[in-house]
Parts: sequence; C-alpha cells; structure tokens
Amino acid sequence: MTSPPRTFRQRRQDTLHRLEHDVDAWVATADPATGIPYLVPLSFLWDGEVLLVSTAAATPTSRNLRANPRTRLGIGPTRDLVLIEATVETVLAAADIPQERGDAFAAKTGFDPRRLSAAYLYFGLRPQRLQAWREVNEIDGRDLMHNGGWLDDTH
Amino acid sequence: MTSPPRTFRQRRQDTLHRLEHDVDAWVATADPATGIPYLVPLSFLWDGEVLLVSTAAATPTSRNLRANPRTRLGIGPTRDLVLIEATVETVLAAADIPQERGDAFAAKTGFDPRRLSAAYLYFGLRPQRLQAWREVNEIDGRDLMHNGGWLDDTH
Repeated sequence: MTSPPRTFRQRRQDTLHRLEHDVDAWVATADPATGIPYLVPLSFLWDGEVLLVSTAAATPTSRNLRANPRTRLGIGPTRDLVLIEATVETVLAAADIPQERGDAFAAKTGFDPRRLSAAYLYFGLRPQRLQAWREVNEIDGRDLMHNGGWLDDTH
Repeated sequence: MTSPPRTFRQRRQDTLHRLEHDVDAWVATADPATGIPYLVPLSFLWDGEVLLVSTAAATPTSRNLRANPRTRLGIGPTRDLVLIEATVETVLAAADIPQERGDAFAAKTGFDPRRLSAAYLYFGLRPQRLQAWREVNEIDGRDLMHNGGWLDDTH
C-alpha cells in the first residue's frame, strides 16, 4: 500500500538526512561535443551547500564535468529518490583540496583520493534544482529547490 | 567485509536475474544540441535482448532519446550494480505497441501507458556494452558485454 504523500517540510527533512548519510550518488554527465551521456555512481560528501565528489582525471565523468558544468544526480532507491540538477562550482586536484575537507570526504566515503598514485580531481557540485518523491502520489509537490534555493514551506 | 570477486559466469547469471526481476533503471540521456544531461528512473521490461521503457512524449528523456540514440542505464544499488551503454532501437507510440508486448510491460512494471490520456512512447534500448560490479575488488572483470555481445566465459 502506498503511504500518503509527505509534506514539503518532511520531504526537505528526509532529503537532508539522505544527503548527510547516503554515500553514493548516480552522476549523469554529457560530453558537449558528441552529446554522449555518461552515468556512474560516485561517493559524495554534502557540506550543507555543495556535493563534493572525486574521480580520476582520466575518466569520462571528469572530462565531461570539465567541459560541461551541467550534471544531474540521483540519490536513493528509485522509489524514494532525490533528483538534483547541479552545476560544477569548483574543480581541484587532489593535492589542492583543503586538508579538513579532504579528511571529511575520506571519513564519510571511506575513499581518499589523496592517497592514490593516479591523478584524481575533486568536483564541487552546487544543486540548482532538487526534487524528491517516493511513489506517483508524490509527483505533485516534488520540487524542493529552484535556482539554487530551497522553496519555502508554503509550497 | 568484502566478499571475494564473482566469476564471469556468476556475474552474468546475477545480471540476467537483475534484468528479469528489477523494475526500475536510472536512465541517463543527453540533449545533443545543448549537451545537457538528463537522468530519471524508469520502469523497464527485459525480453532477453532489449530493455523496453516508456515515458511521456513530452518529457526530456523522450525528446533526448528521439534526437540522440545514445543512453546509459544504471540498475541496482550502487554497490551491486549493472551499468549498460545502450542505443535506441525502436520508438513506438503507445497505440502501436504489439498487444502482447504492451501486456508484458504492464504486468512487469504495474504501469500501462496505453491506458493513459497523455501521449506516451515506448523505447526499445539495445545494450551495446554492459558492466557489473559490487565493490572495488570486482572492478577487474567488470566487462560482461562488448559491441552488443556477451563476452565468453574464458574472460
């Protein structure tokens, strides 16, 4: 049986919990020259504003994010999801990440690109639009963020 | 603790089980004109060759798949995933889907686009490349399909 739809406030609370505690996101990017989409799961750290992800400089995701700031992320199971349109705000080589931020990323994800011999990049992804829904009865009211700002509780 | 890596044969078997029994896939597409990626979960039916998905004709996924045959799908949790590069093989209006195929899709997914008033399309997506892995120790050997054909068991 499908639960009743959650309020805006509850969805935002559940979304923030997921951003803080989930480890992986599906990250969709595209090559702007060929229009070929790419999709891969990456571990992330949420700092309240930005999702930090890291991948080797040689991967399609790195190449796409450097050429094309638009990305879209899916978090959670498909029947309790958070969907995020984001833009690349920062790109840093592993050696250039502030130590505290690199440590927080490693503690959250169990993955420390600074310790690897291959060249890794950190990308800071800023959500511009965010939606959250579980089942069809939550399609209405799924928009929680527009233009980088949370919609207010009256929605 | 991480389990030992699965054999090619086991991964193929687990992958086929997932294709037959999982209901949703994360579907990444891109607009070839703008290079903007899109990502959304869609229910699918696997017939042994092709994944059938359906979405309203007006959605970004429909528009992208009609303009750009390249797509990438992620199935399963991020630590037991199947990643598929696929191409659009068929596009059919809901009214034009063979009845048996439409019925099989509805039975598997619980979703029957033929009964909706909005215009829906069915897309047949043929896997060209397929990978499956759980944890880092399964990155080696993750390729199960190349150029639309399963790699043989000697891999």
